[in-house]
Amino acid sequence: MRLTAFTDYSLRTLIYLATAREGRATIGEIARAFRISENHLVKVVHRLGQMGVLVNTRGRGGGLRLAVSPGAIRVGRIARATESHDVPAECFEPGGSDCVIAPACTLRHVLAEAVDAFYAALDRYTVADLVQKPAPIILRLHEKVPA
Amino acid sequence: MRLTAFTDYSLRTLIYLATAREGRATIGEIARAFRISENHLVKVVHRLGQMGVLVNTRGRGGGLRLAVSPGAIRVGRIARATESHDVPAECFEPGGSDCVIAPACTLRHVLAEAVDAFYAALDRYTVADLVQKPAPIILRLHEKVPA
Repeated sequence: MRLTAFTDYSLRTLIYLATAREGRATIGEIARAFRISENHLVKVVHRLGQMGVLVNTRGRGGGLRLAVSPGAIRVGRIARATESHDVPAECFEPGGSDCVIAPACTLRHVLAEAVDAFYAALDRYTVADLVQKPAPIILRLHEKVPA
Repeated sequence: MRLTAFTDYSLRTLIYLATAREGRATIGEIARAFRISENHLVKVVHRLGQMGVLVNTRGRGGGLRLAVSPGAIRVGRIARATESHDVPAECFEPGGSDCVIAPACTLRHVLAEAVDAFYAALDRYTVADLVQKPAPIILRLHEKVPA
C-alpha cells in the first residue's frame, strides 16, 4: 500500500504554507525546500486551489497561501481528493477488471471498507495537528530557501 | 493507495483453494483460472507456505491446499505479510527518505496510524467470509479449468 507522490507533495505543500513566514510562499520556494519537481508541484497547487484550501495570487506580496486555517483542513479530505484517480487493487479498475471473479468478489467490499477506515483515521487530524509543534528542522526550512 | 499485485494474487489464491473441489489445486490451475503469471504465483505460494496458511505436497493426490481452515485466516494478516516490503509514502523508505523534514514530520505517525486502521479493518474478515456465499461465477471457476 502506497500513497501517490501527488498526495505526499500535497501534504508537504500544506505543511510548508502552514509554517511559512507571513503564511506565504512561492511554488519555486516549496520545490527547492523539498527538492521536488516544480512541474509536479504546479499540478498539486492547481488541485489544492480547486479544493479551496489554498489561493495563488500574482504580483507583489502575492504567492501561495492557505485559503482557510490549518485547523480546518482535514488530512483525510486531502488524501481522498488527491488519491482519487488511483484504486486499491485491480478489481477496482474504473474500466473494469481482468480478474475473472471481479463481478462476484466479496473482497472488493472488504477492501473498500478498509480504505474507508484508512481515510477516517486520517480525518482525525488536520494540517494544524501536523504542525502543532513544528520541530526546528521544519522551521529552518523557511530560512534556508531563497524566496 | 494501491495494494501490490502480490497481495492481490495471495488473496485470490486463498479464495480459490477455499472453494476448490476436494480443497486442492495446482499452481498452474490457479494461474489459468485467474489468467495471471505462473511465475509470479510460485512466489506467492512460497510466501503463503512460509506463513503456514497453505501446504504444497508433491505426487499423486498432491497439490496446494489450505493448511488451516479458511475461518482461521485473517485477511489483514495476509495483507500485512504480503505488503511488508512496501511503504505508504517516501517518508517510510527503509533506507531513509529524501524528504528534508522526514526526521521531524508528524505526518509519518499519522500515516502509520491510518495504515494500522486499514489492516485492522481487514482483520475483521477471514478467508471464510470472502467465500461464505460463493457466487456461481466463483464456483464455475473450478469447472472450467483443466487440472
